[in-house]
Amino acid sequence: MILLKLCKMLLNDRLCQWLGHLKLSRVILMVSVILFVVPLVTHYYLSKYDSLSFSFDGNPMRHTLDAYGDFSLMNAADLKIRIEEMLRIKASVSTELRELEARRARLQREAAAAGARADSAKTEHSRAAAELQRLRVSADQARLAQLEAIRRDSPELAPPSPLLPSQPPPVLPPLPSASQHHCRMHSCFDHSRCSLTSGFPVYFYDPDTYAPIAGAEVDGFLKTTVRQTLGYNAHITQDPKEACIYLVLVGEAFSSERNSISSGDNLKLSLNETVIKSLPYWGGDGRNHVLINLARRELSVGAGDAFKSAMTGRAMIAQSTFILNQFRLGFDIVTPPALGPPGGDVWLDCAPIAPARRKYLLSFQGSQPLFNGLNKDEDKSVIEALQKTAKSSSTSDVFFLQFECDPPVEKRTVYPIGDWALCGTDRSRRALLKDSTFVVILAPSDPSYTSTALLQARLYEGLRSGAIPVILGGDRITLPYDEVLDWRRAVLMLPKARVPELHFVLRAFSDADLLAFRRQGRLFWERYLSSVQVMVDSLLAVVRTRLNIPARPAAPTVGTPAFNESYYPPRLEPPTIDAEPEETLGPLEAPYSSPTYRRNYSIGLVHGYELWNEWADPFALYPQTPWDPPVTSEARFMGSAAGFRPVGAGAGGAGKEFSEALGGDRPREQFTVVILTYEREAVLAAAVARLRGLPYLNKVVVVWNGRTPPSASLAWPESGAPVAVVRAARNSLNNRFLPYDLIDTEAVLCVDDDAHLRHDEIVFAFRVWREHRDRIVGFPGRYHAWDLNYNNGFLYNSNYSCELSMVLTGAAFVHRYYLWAYWRALPAAIRNYVDEFMNCEDIAMNFLVAHITRKPPVKVTSRWTFRCPGCPVTLSSDETHFHERHKCIQFFSQVMGYTPLLSTQYRADSVLFKTRIPHDKQKCFKFI
Amino acid sequence: MILLKLCKMLLNDRLCQWLGHLKLSRVILMVSVILFVVPLVTHYYLSKYDSLSFSFDGNPMRHTLDAYGDFSLMNAADLKIRIEEMLRIKASVSTELRELEARRARLQREAAAAGARADSAKTEHSRAAAELQRLRVSADQARLAQLEAIRRDSPELAPPSPLLPSQPPPVLPPLPSASQHHCRMHSCFDHSRCSLTSGFPVYFYDPDTYAPIAGAEVDGFLKTTVRQTLGYNAHITQDPKEACIYLVLVGEAFSSERNSISSGDNLKLSLNETVIKSLPYWGGDGRNHVLINLARRELSVGAGDAFKSAMTGRAMIAQSTFILNQFRLGFDIVTPPALGPPGGDVWLDCAPIAPARRKYLLSFQGSQPLFNGLNKDEDKSVIEALQKTAKSSSTSDVFFLQFECDPPVEKRTVYPIGDWALCGTDRSRRALLKDSTFVVILAPSDPSYTSTALLQARLYEGLRSGAIPVILGGDRITLPYDEVLDWRRAVLMLPKARVPELHFVLRAFSDADLLAFRRQGRLFWERYLSSVQVMVDSLLAVVRTRLNIPARPAAPTVGTPAFNESYYPPRLEPPTIDAEPEETLGPLEAPYSSPTYRRNYSIGLVHGYELWNEWADPFALYPQTPWDPPVTSEARFMGSAAGFRPVGAGAGGAGKEFSEALGGDRPREQFTVVILTYEREAVLAAAVARLRGLPYLNKVVVVWNGRTPPSASLAWPESGAPVAVVRAARNSLNNRFLPYDLIDTEAVLCVDDDAHLRHDEIVFAFRVWREHRDRIVGFPGRYHAWDLNYNNGFLYNSNYSCELSMVLTGAAFVHRYYLWAYWRALPAAIRNYVDEFMNCEDIAMNFLVAHITRKPPVKVTSRWTFRCPGCPVTLSSDETHFHERHKCIQFFSQVMGYTPLLSTQYRADSVLFKTRIPHDKQKCFKFI
Repeated sequence: MILLKLCKMLLNDRLCQWLGHLKLSRVILMVSVILFVVPLVTHYYLSKYDSLSFSFDGNPMRHTLDAYGDFSLMNAADLKIRIEEMLRIKASVSTELRELEARRARLQREAAAAGARADSAKTEHSRAAAELQRLRVSADQARLAQLEAIRRDSPELAPPSPLLPSQPPPVLPPLPSASQHHCRMHSCFDHSRCSLTSGFPVYFYDPDTYAPIAGAEVDGFLKTTVRQTLGYNAHITQDPKEACIYLVLVGEAFSSERNSISSGDNLKLSLNETVIKSLPYWGGDGRNHVLINLARRELSVGAGDAFKSAMTGRAMIAQSTFILNQFRLGFDIVTPPALGPPGGDVWLDCAPIAPARRKYLLSFQGSQPLFNGLNKDEDKSVIEALQKTAKSSSTSDVFFLQFECDPPVEKRTVYPIGDWALCGTDRSRRALLKDSTFVVILAPSDPSYTSTALLQARLYEGLRSGAIPVILGGDRITLPYDEVLDWRRAVLMLPKARVPELHFVLRAFSDADLLAFRRQGRLFWERYLSSVQVMVDSLLAVVRTRLNIPARPAAPTVGTPAFNESYYPPRLEPPTIDAEPEETLGPLEAPYSSPTYRRNYSIGLVHGYELWNEWADPFALYPQTPWDPPVTSEARFMGSAAGFRPVGAGAGGAGKEFSEALGGDRPREQFTVVILTYEREAVLAAAVARLRGLPYLNKVVVVWNGRTPPSASLAWPESGAPVAVVRAARNSLNNRFLPYDLIDTEAVLCVDDDAHLRHDEIVFAFRVWREHRDRIVGFPGRYHAWDLNYNNGFLYNSNYSCELSMVLTGAAFVHRYYLWAYWRALPAAIRNYVDEFMNCEDIAMNFLVAHITRKPPVKVTSRWTFRCPGCPVTLSSDETHFHERHKCIQFFSQVMGYTPLLSTQYRADSVLFKTRIPHDKQKCFKFI
Repeated sequence: MILLKLCKMLLNDRLCQWLGHLKLSRVILMVSVILFVVPLVTHYYLSKYDSLSFSFDGNPMRHTLDAYGDFSLMNAADLKIRIEEMLRIKASVSTELRELEARRARLQREAAAAGARADSAKTEHSRAAAELQRLRVSADQARLAQLEAIRRDSPELAPPSPLLPSQPPPVLPPLPSASQHHCRMHSCFDHSRCSLTSGFPVYFYDPDTYAPIAGAEVDGFLKTTVRQTLGYNAHITQDPKEACIYLVLVGEAFSSERNSISSGDNLKLSLNETVIKSLPYWGGDGRNHVLINLARRELSVGAGDAFKSAMTGRAMIAQSTFILNQFRLGFDIVTPPALGPPGGDVWLDCAPIAPARRKYLLSFQGSQPLFNGLNKDEDKSVIEALQKTAKSSSTSDVFFLQFECDPPVEKRTVYPIGDWALCGTDRSRRALLKDSTFVVILAPSDPSYTSTALLQARLYEGLRSGAIPVILGGDRITLPYDEVLDWRRAVLMLPKARVPELHFVLRAFSDADLLAFRRQGRLFWERYLSSVQVMVDSLLAVVRTRLNIPARPAAPTVGTPAFNESYYPPRLEPPTIDAEPEETLGPLEAPYSSPTYRRNYSIGLVHGYELWNEWADPFALYPQTPWDPPVTSEARFMGSAAGFRPVGAGAGGAGKEFSEALGGDRPREQFTVVILTYEREAVLAAAVARLRGLPYLNKVVVVWNGRTPPSASLAWPESGAPVAVVRAARNSLNNRFLPYDLIDTEAVLCVDDDAHLRHDEIVFAFRVWREHRDRIVGFPGRYHAWDLNYNNGFLYNSNYSCELSMVLTGAAFVHRYYLWAYWRALPAAIRNYVDEFMNCEDIAMNFLVAHITRKPPVKVTSRWTFRCPGCPVTLSSDETHFHERHKCIQFFSQVMGYTPLLSTQYRADSVLFKTRIPHDKQKCFKFI
């Protein structure tokens, strides 16, 4: 019944009646057959459709039906007729079906084609729209830049071109002896020889020709070394006519007669005033002259103070020993003794900074010869107080106090001012100092001295070995270069009256402060005292700083082009990789260099303190530093708008407004991509190609580290910015950080040639870097983990971690300043180590930045998955690599005296990353 | 065939043969029926199983079969028999099936029950495990703390307890006149009266009783004001026996005889040495005395230098006028003239910092009386050079130079040293200075002066109006308090010889540097020069700094408990809100206070420069500052481990290792939650309840801002940490930032009572704050947008933005130091404004921190969606609120002279947030 009804619904009545008369079994069989066969046939034809579409007839169907007929297990003839009838019906139905199918397919094809066209049009449109958007933004930028250029009537500043005197100093009448003691820069210095743009030229009298100490000559080592080290100084000129200051090496001098050494008296050498006055540029009163008397072999007061009663006119005096009343503050200069090597690395002489507390809390070793001055009693009570402290201490602190040398010190060096002679050898003293948290330095008993060479030598040795100097009587002591160095941070200066409170004060220092003191002391020692080179450089820098003349610009590395000038590699339109046309990340502008040398005359004022005490590089002028101050936020809308691109013209915003402007507290700028590559031309070409269309890209500098030059056949892809290929002199990973003259921006993006960074990641990191210009801002985070097995230092670690202390420079922004610092502030041993193992230049850069800034790096978000960091497979295959990197950390820490790395526990993401916002609002970036 | 085979496979042969004889159609039908019926029946029974399980028999099945029989359309009797046979078979099969089914169901039930038990056990287990984990970690912490306590044998430091001398100074023979000029701290100061823990007590001689200027008395205003301001100074003691130093107010004094004013001569007042020497604690030589001679009404040299040829013994001299040879460096003190009000806010006197460049590049206004000294020619040439510069300038720079006053200045104040008298009135000078980028200050022609009151007055006025002082002859000028202030950052000091280069130098300053100079000048002026109060405080602080005696501790606010001591509100077990037992965020430890006053004797050394020049608060000692240095990373494993909790014991890590330890570069610590509430007890109770189980929580301080005390019936929920409720004296939003003595940690989490923060968010923000202790680290970001319509300042903006400059303190961490700074460093006008409008305390805190640090805040990730920020509905309903906040920004900027806010474009997320990591690794946090 149901079947009948169904049948009637589907077919006409007559046919159904006829069907009703069929034997049910047959019907069922037939239906079964049909049910079985039709899908098969349909499927067959559908799948064969293409090939059959033009040669279609009934035969294949028949054939198929016959073939399936075998399975029907039934041969009744009448049934066959009916079946054939059925088949005809089916065939017509099938034909209809086929036609329908064909039409459908045709329509489908047409739709697909249309869809494809629509898609491509849409893509084209969105690309065009994005391009238009970029162009519009770029045009806006260009217009703004033009406006700014018109508005600004100030000339562009450049490294100063020197303005020099053309005459040697004229001869003036000598200064009366009484006025000599009142010499100050304003009264005794001739500024006319030292214009601000002069570059501070310095002339050095040949010490072989001029020997200003009567009957004596300058120590040979000093003579050679000073001449040599001054040769490296950028301020030295051979032309006395243009010089600003004149250097005379007076000592350390020793009597020419060998046999007189044994007599104590001739240690007091006297200045030969005739020689001084006949110096060719003395000019009658010695103005702009600096008389240098270095202490080295002979540290006693007799040798140290060569000018006690001499007529030196308007000349400045630089030596280690000074009587308080003789020392002209802000004019004369206290120098450290020349105890170090001529130059070069000095870290091997130093002791590590940690642990904060050493075996002895306080040590002293010295011997005071007979002294009959006024203050003898005072010193005796100081010594007694010290001894009492050491004995009666109720704490666990250990003191090492030795007020008589064992073996006794030679009496030869004695000079009766109550100075304390050094005991033992350099080696024995060093051993003690390395075990001392603090070391006492006792000011000489004679209170009229503000500095003696012996005291300075004690300071030198204490700082070298990391024993924090405690100068008792420090309130009357002048320390080297103290007009620029903040010695409070490295040396504890106490009045002798504070000796009963000494132990209390020493205990009051926390470990962190002890380490800060020791670190600062070592910084001062390394940069300003350690070698003859740094000592002489510092001396000149101090005088230059007084005059507020900028240092000479740090020399950039001149990049050797990898190609002949005549030849330029063919440009190639790159394949569209990472085209990201759907997101405008910023305007595409013409290359715009960061302004250079804008602060030549203000950096020494606004940042004079940091220059000497924090960054510790007052010796060169840099085009920019990471610490240049920002303009206040309202000034940008009140006359200081030049270069600024506030988000939404100042109204702020997200999405479009944000992407159109860099915003922030810094003016517009671009960055340079530096790619270090080693004979991987295809990889490099892909790396350059990936940069196409990257906003804010100023230039691509490819450092070609290969032995062979890049092949001339290499076609260079278009990157949208100039590409400069420089060939390194030798294959070295350090080349990545060469301060090439080709780099015109403050921001430098260091990338490995195989690092795949997305454009949005780069632009976001650039924005974050603009807020943290003094830090490494980048993608691959690593950390230093304490070696828990051996407990002997840190290991390099690339595991997944929530705390990181390094960001690898295979994909990171650094300030251009650090490229110079890498070569100037890092000990050469570190760069040599990098060369030796062809590894770890990135770790070295992290050490350097953390050392200078005492800040951790900034990790920014990345969609880039690094090649399986820390997974076991890599680890085992790269075991040597990792082992080397452990060693690097340990070696670098040894060289620097500590591990400067600091940790960070967060990552910088864009402000609205993964945030639910209303539908009508936009995020900062689409994907990050 | 197939069916047969199938049948044979399934049943036995005989049955199959019998089945084979059946008519195929019937078989098919039967099979169909069976196929149709069986599932239905099965389904029916399965669904009815529960109700039928105990009353099962064949009837329902029969019934069903009969019912379906109607559909079979067939009534053949033989078939029925067979069907019945079949049914029997089926029934037996069914029975079997039912039994199986029942068993299955039973098993299922059992399994479900077991599963539930297992689940509950598992939950129990995980809870227990978490608890155990917490306990274990807490136990570890406790053990470590114990170990540390044992290891440390040093006594805990506290705010220094005074150790005072009990005798007035003994009388010593007077100092010979010749030695007086050589007085330095080491030779003329008695340290024994000033122990390091003395707290630097200062005794002030009543100026009414002691008038040390012969025939004259101290200006009445000064007398009153100095006495009053010293009364506010923490160092003043009434007990002369215990004093460290003794202050004598010498001037400014005027002749007691009124009629003598017209005569110029009596301006030269002379010190009455008899009075001085008969001061009760003079002790024969005046040691530890400070003779103060302030300049106010009379700025000429005659009045300024009261001690020119006087015998002052070992006393220090503090005044504005000094001859170079008379000034004892490091002993005497140059003070600014007392031109300001007695105390209080001074911002109204100042000019805004922006724009960087004003109408005149350089201005000068002054008149030089006759001077016949040596250097007359020099000054003439300086003036000519200046005039030439002004005239011949090829740039657009405008100069205002006036070397004769109009109207001419009174001749009365003339004293023949070539000092430049001020022209016009304070008002007229101020008008000019506000239009000047730079102002020239000419050092007096007589080069023997290192400072004069007139010059200092020019400095004072220049800094006040934001004209950057350019002191020509600055190389011989001593500026106020220059042993602690780095004047290079605020004042341009040039030798007179540089005058031809002046224009060049001035142009070389970038806008950013100009603003930095002006800002620093204003900072110095406000903190150290502006009023008599700050001037006198600075004077004492300078002497104290010399001695390296710590300042007195800043007084905390003593919180008034809201409840009687006898009464404590009942504790209530809170409902489990946000329990988050699935994530261990850190150990639950006993309250652990941050160590306090650890750097009393080192902060002035390590951070002496910043104390005076950056943070500008050397006047008080704080338990901690945000800038305390960290211990180097290896020192923590080499003896300085106390308090440190390295992640993974130093091996680093994510997930569990990370959550167990705070890590980072700081030792362990906790934070205090400060909730400001206003009579919303239910909201408050919920807020406290939400903190339950929060790791690192030290204490909850509830500031009850209501008029009425909290009701005694209010039951307090258990928060897991002590809850202290303090009642504020009055209803003020400023109370949120009171430095309550109840706060024992450096980290303070300020929260609104209705802020819903998740525990993981808080812990993460705490970790980020530990890296940025000097910044506001929190959740709701806002920014200041330039008012593009009126162009007159910034508007407050809470729209979605990718750049932010404020983080609201409704949910943010700040350092405890800033709670003091809010009351000490902010002008009172800002706090008053907050009170007046009951709004903007959060903006004020952002201004303060940005002003001190020059850094933007840090926004951290939040799942917390703020109540619809910036959506139009809120905006309109809160229009007044927003309008007030615009006004706040504008008013605060006016008070501070600039808008200190800086922008940031990123958010801090946890390192592995939304990062794909291998399955065996863990993230830092589960959800953020």
